[in-house]
Amino acid sequence: MAHASPVSPLAPKTTPEVGPVAGVRFATAEAGIRYKGRTDVLLLTLDAGTSVAGVFTRSKCPSAPVEWCRANLPNGTARALVVNSGNANAFTGAKGRESTALTAKIAAKALGCREEEIYLASTGVIGEPLDATKFEGVLAETATRLAPLPWIEPAKAIMTTDTFPKLATAKVKIDGVEVTIAGIAKGAGMIAPDMATMLSFVFTDAAIEAPALQALLSKGVTDSFNAVTIDGDTSTSDTLMLFATGASGAPRIDDAKDPRLGRFRKALTGVLADLAEQVARDGEGARKLVKIHVTGATSKRSARRIAMSIANSPLVKTAVAGEDANWGRIVMAVGKAGEPAERDRLSISFGAIRVAHEGARDPAYDEGEVSAYMKNDVIDITVDLGLGRGADRVMTCDLTKEYVAINGDYRS
Amino acid sequence: MAHASPVSPLAPKTTPEVGPVAGVRFATAEAGIRYKGRTDVLLLTLDAGTSVAGVFTRSKCPSAPVEWCRANLPNGTARALVVNSGNANAFTGAKGRESTALTAKIAAKALGCREEEIYLASTGVIGEPLDATKFEGVLAETATRLAPLPWIEPAKAIMTTDTFPKLATAKVKIDGVEVTIAGIAKGAGMIAPDMATMLSFVFTDAAIEAPALQALLSKGVTDSFNAVTIDGDTSTSDTLMLFATGASGAPRIDDAKDPRLGRFRKALTGVLADLAEQVARDGEGARKLVKIHVTGATSKRSARRIAMSIANSPLVKTAVAGEDANWGRIVMAVGKAGEPAERDRLSISFGAIRVAHEGARDPAYDEGEVSAYMKNDVIDITVDLGLGRGADRVMTCDLTKEYVAINGDYRS
Repeated sequence: MAHASPVSPLAPKTTPEVGPVAGVRFATAEAGIRYKGRTDVLLLTLDAGTSVAGVFTRSKCPSAPVEWCRANLPNGTARALVVNSGNANAFTGAKGRESTALTAKIAAKALGCREEEIYLASTGVIGEPLDATKFEGVLAETATRLAPLPWIEPAKAIMTTDTFPKLATAKVKIDGVEVTIAGIAKGAGMIAPDMATMLSFVFTDAAIEAPALQALLSKGVTDSFNAVTIDGDTSTSDTLMLFATGASGAPRIDDAKDPRLGRFRKALTGVLADLAEQVARDGEGARKLVKIHVTGATSKRSARRIAMSIANSPLVKTAVAGEDANWGRIVMAVGKAGEPAERDRLSISFGAIRVAHEGARDPAYDEGEVSAYMKNDVIDITVDLGLGRGADRVMTCDLTKEYVAINGDYRS
Repeated sequence: MAHASPVSPLAPKTTPEVGPVAGVRFATAEAGIRYKGRTDVLLLTLDAGTSVAGVFTRSKCPSAPVEWCRANLPNGTARALVVNSGNANAFTGAKGRESTALTAKIAAKALGCREEEIYLASTGVIGEPLDATKFEGVLAETATRLAPLPWIEPAKAIMTTDTFPKLATAKVKIDGVEVTIAGIAKGAGMIAPDMATMLSFVFTDAAIEAPALQALLSKGVTDSFNAVTIDGDTSTSDTLMLFATGASGAPRIDDAKDPRLGRFRKALTGVLADLAEQVARDGEGARKLVKIHVTGATSKRSARRIAMSIANSPLVKTAVAGEDANWGRIVMAVGKAGEPAERDRLSISFGAIRVAHEGARDPAYDEGEVSAYMKNDVIDITVDLGLGRGADRVMTCDLTKEYVAINGDYRS
């Protein structure tokens, strides 16, 4: 499904080796959703007893698949995930709901499970009804080819405007039994008339009850996917799901705070953070990864808002693209966040170079040194507010002419 | 002070003839603030008895001149306005405060008035102390050349990244006596290392007490300057001031709701709206003016937030630049606003062409017709939420590669 674009200069140097996750199998297929002869369906199946958790777009106008998943999540169990490209089934009204129901019905029949155990995600054109009858026959045939490896396949199958496949993995022990975590993601951004959504699916063979799994995911997302922004725009279809098959033989756990989950919790957070960073590294047109650290705020929540105001400022992002350590624009973005800030207590650093201190230019800094720093691929910007102990970090990328070209030039 | 850029294709075809405002005189000068041999100071003087009102940036990190003006506004009277370019006197700490005090002292001495009757605005580099001693002698000499015309001069003198001077005027009667309103503005946007701020100054020879004048301005700004956004970024120095000299001989009015102000109120709102639209028409890199109309919201406040979410969306703005009627991105921007919205009640139109209705593509619309519409200079986007009677309108411009070039390429 991938477009032919040059690979982002920020792509990881190597693709991680991701081993099998017991209880998870997958296969891809061509259903002709929008084009003939193109892989456009990914079927992932899960052993009986798999529990599921999810977080979705905060959009007030979510896609039909997001509504379908949200409605079924309280059941807590999953047997399959069907992801299609070519059509996002978003803004399709009543037809969209009928389409998700029919897709789930076809998948459930092919796999011999209940419809409410089928989870769905779609990416592609919006506003066009998705003809779910195209899944008829296709999913049953796909189910005959399911295999546990290699993970690069589903990672590639969900790509749209991504320039590289995104995978992350970890192995840890729960009560002495080794479990695997494996995750894939596709990046955020839109390319007309297709809507390219952030999708991420994480799988483990640990045995964790659904409410505990949801608690782990909801906590893990705060400082990973929720701390990444490309352009401040929110897809109607953003979806992150976590599935636990229990097939590792590790003991079943029903409390997210269970001390046996200590390492697992950390490893899951690491996988989510890794995937989220890869999404930022593949922002449309991105040439630089920008990490914004805010310290000395009145609270973490306030620090997050200030960091997001900086990360979403077109003037900050164009300055980074221009390799300019323009701290005036950082001050501007702090000022417009609406959070407690005192001009005369602000300090701003690019990398380890402090350029502003106590509300004025730092007389000690060397212009040549900071200019050299700005040529790096990864730029750290630290803002200390000098007010309290609230701190946070978010990630974004620069705003380049390529972003405008990708999102505005497709008609010319 | 103007940069050499091609004039925006959205510039008004003619520059309005602006007559004198009794009690207002002005002259420009070269003080060598940043460069030698460049006009960088505008001195405007006001007859004794002039009342003043102002609205300023909501930034928590405002510039020293904004703090100076805010502190003096409660006195209610003004005798002069000093505007300089080359240095914004922003993020300059204690030195910034000393600089504003010294500038006011020099101006007050040159004009024979009190320091607290001097108002200040600065635009230019930030973080560098403004050497106010450069005004010494210059303002006294400038004061010998004051004249009431032509208004194009101050309009040009405050330009930075603007591609055309912005003026607006109106004449109305108050209790049978004709009064004049004349305003100038410079656009929003930043060009490094200078910060180009939105500045606007409006003058009238009506006689209106300061509290009433403030009430008129605060109300007038809601649907004019506060309804315009270029990139969602907020300068630390945005300033809009209104001065009333009382020199027309019209009766002195002390209540904004006085029925004799009926036509004046309307004319003032018109001048502010005209200037604000000119600012949007001169957004950095703008090729299209975009008017976003939201109807059917639960309140005007909710409609404003949704309209601003659309106006500030990089994906909507790049689509307009690409002449694409991409209503999927409008749905996205409505959804992310966080305001009440129901997907299945949404209608979206470009100009008079309804492209989406009741949560799905409008089957009646003609793709060729809407493509032709998108080639216009001015694009009207209407979103009807179908929920209530709240309505609002905001203005913005498209996001082009030129915007990125202006704000990111200056170093290369």
